[in-house]
Amino acid sequence: MKTLLLNADMGESFGPWVMGLDHEVMPHVDLANVACGFHASDPDVIRITVRLASRHGVTVGAHPAYPDMVGFGRRSMACSAEEVENLVLYQVGALAAICRAEGLEVGYVKPHGALYHDMMREPEVLDAVMRALVAFDARLPLMVMATRDTSAAREMAQRHGVTLWFEAFADRAYDPEGRLVSRRELGAVHHDTEVIVDQARRIASGEPLTASDGSELVLDADTLCVHGDNPESIAAIQAIREALNDLKSAP
Amino acid sequence: MKTLLLNADMGESFGPWVMGLDHEVMPHVDLANVACGFHASDPDVIRITVRLASRHGVTVGAHPAYPDMVGFGRRSMACSAEEVENLVLYQVGALAAICRAEGLEVGYVKPHGALYHDMMREPEVLDAVMRALVAFDARLPLMVMATRDTSAAREMAQRHGVTLWFEAFADRAYDPEGRLVSRRELGAVHHDTEVIVDQARRIASGEPLTASDGSELVLDADTLCVHGDNPESIAAIQAIREALNDLKSAP
Amino acid sequence: MKTLLLNADMGESFGPWVMGLDHEVMPHVDLANVACGFHASDPDVIRITVRLASRHGVTVGAHPAYPDMVGFGRRSMACSAEEVENLVLYQVGALAAICRAEGLEVGYVKPHGALYHDMMREPEVLDAVMRALVAFDARLPLMVMATRDTSAAREMAQRHGVTLWFEAFADRAYDPEGRLVSRRELGAVHHDTEVIVDQARRIASGEPLTASDGSELVLDADTLCVHGDNPESIAAIQAIREALNDLKSAP
Amino acid sequence: MKTLLLNADMGESFGPWVMGLDHEVMPHVDLANVACGFHASDPDVIRITVRLASRHGVTVGAHPAYPDMVGFGRRSMACSAEEVENLVLYQVGALAAICRAEGLEVGYVKPHGALYHDMMREPEVLDAVMRALVAFDARLPLMVMATRDTSAAREMAQRHGVTLWFEAFADRAYDPEGRLVSRRELGAVHHDTEVIVDQARRIASGEPLTASDGSELVLDADTLCVHGDNPESIAAIQAIREALNDLKSAP
Repeated sequence: MKTLLLNADMGESFGPWVMGLDHEVMPHVDLANVACGFHASDPDVIRITVRLASRHGVTVGAHPAYPDMVGFGRRSMACSAEEVENLVLYQVGALAAICRAEGLEVGYVKPHGALYHDMMREPEVLDAVMRALVAFDARLPLMVMATRDTSAAREMAQRHGVTLWFEAFADRAYDPEGRLVSRRELGAVHHDTEVIVDQARRIASGEPLTASDGSELVLDADTLCVHGDNPESIAAIQAIREALNDLKSAP
Repeated sequence: MKTLLLNADMGESFGPWVMGLDHEVMPHVDLANVACGFHASDPDVIRITVRLASRHGVTVGAHPAYPDMVGFGRRSMACSAEEVENLVLYQVGALAAICRAEGLEVGYVKPHGALYHDMMREPEVLDAVMRALVAFDARLPLMVMATRDTSAAREMAQRHGVTLWFEAFADRAYDPEGRLVSRRELGAVHHDTEVIVDQARRIASGEPLTASDGSELVLDADTLCVHGDNPESIAAIQAIREALNDLKSAP
Repeated sequence: MKTLLLNADMGESFGPWVMGLDHEVMPHVDLANVACGFHASDPDVIRITVRLASRHGVTVGAHPAYPDMVGFGRRSMACSAEEVENLVLYQVGALAAICRAEGLEVGYVKPHGALYHDMMREPEVLDAVMRALVAFDARLPLMVMATRDTSAAREMAQRHGVTLWFEAFADRAYDPEGRLVSRRELGAVHHDTEVIVDQARRIASGEPLTASDGSELVLDADTLCVHGDNPESIAAIQAIREALNDLKSAP
Repeated sequence: MKTLLLNADMGESFGPWVMGLDHEVMPHVDLANVACGFHASDPDVIRITVRLASRHGVTVGAHPAYPDMVGFGRRSMACSAEEVENLVLYQVGALAAICRAEGLEVGYVKPHGALYHDMMREPEVLDAVMRALVAFDARLPLMVMATRDTSAAREMAQRHGVTLWFEAFADRAYDPEGRLVSRRELGAVHHDTEVIVDQARRIASGEPLTASDGSELVLDADTLCVHGDNPESIAAIQAIREALNDLKSAP
């Protein structure tokens, strides 16, 4: 059984504004998705975040976004494929320089917010992201969402020579296609730690989840997205981490 | 006699706004100081500019600035040394990624506008810029202004292991210390092409200029800053280039 | 016959970047759509533009946009209705203060670019714009596009107590519904001054245009949008102005 | 004895980032200095803040700043007097429009951060701020710092026809000239609530403070600046309020 890595969004502070409990989350995750200054973060926040990741041996990933600070990169913007390619390159490079100053390298790329969702929905956005990634360093894995059928993304990745890391969510309900149920729906987000840990364990061990229509859904995931906004979510991360460790050490 | 390289600010367009005749200037210069998105430029403009430089075999330099688009990086900002270090790193990295996508590397760093002037005036700003540069790639030369006495900058550079490229101006009057006469003074800017070319020739051949107080001023320069804002300035660049070529081919 | 007013986008410069021949256009138009700092312009550009409008007795309109400088407000952004309402208010107010400093008042509101198009397509965006307008000053007319059937917009405006000014285009082809033919289509933009002037004359006199499918299209318009990007377009504005004056003075 | 009004910075959140305990502070103050989108806040935050002020009958003041979000307007920028005038106008107008939507008016202007400090130090910055204020509405008071000798500011204000509101600080040490002791100095900030309340009481009743050199300092103040960043500071505000109420009701 492969190890399910934990990833979390980090470095989302900006200037005088603090967001996220990065110091509490960092010790418990494997991968830090670091905001690159377009939806959150700034050069100083990036520096501090990368240093923190370095101290905990956490791999730094670039978390590029649409240029929309006030909207936190959550609002889709009608950018052209070329604009997407270049803004991803720009952000990955900016992060990479600060990583280098701290003796690290960028380890992967995970688009943020609306860019992530647009990339999952529109092949030309995904293609633009892959072009940016290959132009920067073809060895960098791209994190995309684990859905029921990932063949289209895998074919495109193969064509570009890009490695994909599939990401799943322990605290979100899935529809039968393996897409996240909209937050506007009742039951879209799990709040009970036991439910979250159980979903994490199932994903890690390849057991099926129950999709929103009652059907079985198996997600083939490399990493699990976790959040560290408040003490409860930090506790959930720790519980997931323990459950995954137990799985690994099981005979 | 060493060759005096020509450098020009490039990639200063932004979104829909065009600035500078980059296509006309690029064929005549050796070094392109490419804006990195803080005072001018954006990921798409950078891409186009780097591609143009690549086509003409021109070395791309990073031209980082204070974060001040509307003020074009010309207004001094009270940034801390740490802020300067990190914003330079960020900008150099962003440009470097786009260079890589076009098969190039960043060849040097030249701070822009108010950051350049503050760096020449305040040792802690210069030190911060050097720290950024060393952290990114200690082999990158830093372009600074050639003045009468450059010992302080050279000592600091030696301490950091940084190579300095000294820059002179053919179209500006100098005070006895080798600083530019303020644009507010009469005669601060040369407009006559003959005067400009003569100053370029003197700098290239190590002959003294006449400073604003009548004293002789010898500038030890590696590169000459030229501007390509209008057809007249393009003509001046070409005239300077020819004069420098004549010098080189002279027995 | 009512007078067809000429409106043009103005004050689209930004910091050091110049856009548009405002000085050449201003003498020939009735209405200046002044950018408010979200897609173009800045406090200083607004001041200069308003002063210029004042000198020529031109009515100043607010030209609010999505917050997207690099994309010039041309990229649709998934803003909520509340966000649209507040960003319109903010921009109208900022312009109004600078108008007051020049002894003028904001005379109308015309959303810009993607916000304009989204407003024409999505009723909730139009509603949000109207809410902003009423909250600021219910007497301000809102400029919207003249299409074949404007009943929905007129009903909504009546509900809000908002006056609509319908805008037509002399240099663009229309589809049978009275929407602009996409610029990607052949023949979408008229370049021949005679064709442009004829279309202006027809709109002013209530004569039908020929839509893209050959059908007749009558547009009931209050104002005509003109552009002043280059000497040719300035000449076209003058030709339109003369043709409209001839119509008015005709017996 | 005149009433000492309490003012506090409000609306300093931005997009997804929250700053300040505005809901806790608003019930206890008279004047809300509302950020206008250049150093903090955005149209939505302004709307919410103004609505909150309206609910508590608190007067809204404009809190304009240099355009420096990441630096929170705390870094001095070399803006020209004309730039200062126009950016103040722009921000006051933007806030005024949103106030109008909530049935309020802007009640005064208090520059923020570095702009405030530059205004107190450089007469041409103060003059530019006053010009903006008069151009917008000459009846709006301008909040400036109460120092030992305020004659220069008062003369300038009289020339412009501007009313000044002098502001003092209960939690800061003063030098003999009535300027704040730099935060870098030991003892610059009072943390003990008793000390803070005593200083507030002295200012309100016209009793002298003890300046940093031991001399007596009488500040003639109209308003006291308070902060609401954490529960302790909220408690201090309440204690100050009670002390001032006691003073007022004293025979």
